[in-house]
Amino acid sequence: MPNRHTKARSQRGQHGGRAARREWSRRKPSETVMLYGWHTVTAALANPARHFRKLLATENALRRLADEGITLPLPAEMVRPDALAARLTSDAVHQGLLAEADPLPSPDIEELPATGIVLVLDQITDPHNVGAILRTAAAFAVAAVVTTARHSPEATGVLAKSASGALELVPIVIVQNLARGLAALKERGFLVVGLDGSAPDDLAAIKLRAPLALVLGAEGKGLRQLTGATCDRLARLNLPGAIKSLNVSNAAALALYIAARTNA
Amino acid sequence: MPNRHTKARSQRGQHGGRAARREWSRRKPSETVMLYGWHTVTAALANPARHFRKLLATENALRRLADEGITLPLPAEMVRPDALAARLTSDAVHQGLLAEADPLPSPDIEELPATGIVLVLDQITDPHNVGAILRTAAAFAVAAVVTTARHSPEATGVLAKSASGALELVPIVIVQNLARGLAALKERGFLVVGLDGSAPDDLAAIKLRAPLALVLGAEGKGLRQLTGATCDRLARLNLPGAIKSLNVSNAAALALYIAARTNA
Repeated sequence: MPNRHTKARSQRGQHGGRAARREWSRRKPSETVMLYGWHTVTAALANPARHFRKLLATENALRRLADEGITLPLPAEMVRPDALAARLTSDAVHQGLLAEADPLPSPDIEELPATGIVLVLDQITDPHNVGAILRTAAAFAVAAVVTTARHSPEATGVLAKSASGALELVPIVIVQNLARGLAALKERGFLVVGLDGSAPDDLAAIKLRAPLALVLGAEGKGLRQLTGATCDRLARLNLPGAIKSLNVSNAAALALYIAARTNA
Repeated sequence: MPNRHTKARSQRGQHGGRAARREWSRRKPSETVMLYGWHTVTAALANPARHFRKLLATENALRRLADEGITLPLPAEMVRPDALAARLTSDAVHQGLLAEADPLPSPDIEELPATGIVLVLDQITDPHNVGAILRTAAAFAVAAVVTTARHSPEATGVLAKSASGALELVPIVIVQNLARGLAALKERGFLVVGLDGSAPDDLAAIKLRAPLALVLGAEGKGLRQLTGATCDRLARLNLPGAIKSLNVSNAAALALYIAARTNA
């Protein structure tokens, strides 16, 4: 999620200083995010922390919102479906709803409770995959998703649609330096486990415990060298078939299922 | 996978007759499929059952094929990267390889071994999702994927790319009538379990056994009424968080993991 601006905060306590402040950032809600699709927009409407700038809805969608007793925090602008379609790519399914809103605040690692599971994404760039991962993270009650400021998609558009409302439920922690972010999680007591297809140990066979950080790399590239080196443990998913790597959102789902079973 | 032509074969034994022959079909390899991307094309090149019509490769890709000792079943046409890009959508990652080939034959249910796990897709339309499901199916050594002739994407392009070589590994059984296909699986001894978010039983808690057919419906719509009614059992995935449904490929991954653990 590029182009973040910073609220100065050091991740290294009082010794962090100016350089750390520049590197490690809290996002200032200066950009606009676009939300479309029924689940995505209605989840945002139900989130008191979400500040809207504009809400466009078709006549059908307005009727459905009224039927479901959904109160609107701002007046909706009634538009024809093709006016929504014109603002989106041709394969986008808007279901009559499109909103412009401020991005949600991104907490710091220090603000996360040291409980449960967090998911850490090491430069996963595909917005469909990151959206599906957020959705699955919400389904597994993950405490937060940690992602890098660079080489990550923004929390808008396709990502928001694929997340199917999960953007409103799972805090996204944005870090400039992932190895430093992992170190901060370790200092807070997290066991940091990286998924690596070439690791000898099966994730389901190693001892997991809360608080747990599960780290996933991009497909093909995997974890960056420093990311892997910073993890407490590396583990693979046990795949009995001829293909030995999964779509990254599928891998995240399995890892979360395994962690939720053993980590309770 | 629409527009299949038929090789007459009755699924109801000698009483099927002409109507059944029309409804239930084996695909005749009359269309051309497009394969692009390194894993997708090299897996096809390694598959002796895949008949190629054309192979386009960039200079870099040709060198990489030679470096990896991959023998080509037909002469490659060397092209510039933009000639490949021009044949694909702007977000397609071709990695220097594009092939035109015949579709693979689609077996009948009667030809499947009555062992292991098959995955049944009830009108899942998104090619990225179906591709990711095929990839995960190959990772779990699934015996076959059963899909409907209508309201399913063709095994080409984006689906093939998302499958990352799995098209060459997992047979796809194409049926005209899914309820009849499930009945045929049951006759062959398969336990047919449908995934349904509103089912009372957790998939991980019910007794599974091989041969097993796991049935998945489209996101939002779920299983069609007749599909659900034809299953032996319905079960849900146990999701502890606020979101109670997953991306369908994520759901397939979890279901396969659970089935592979209990079904061995």
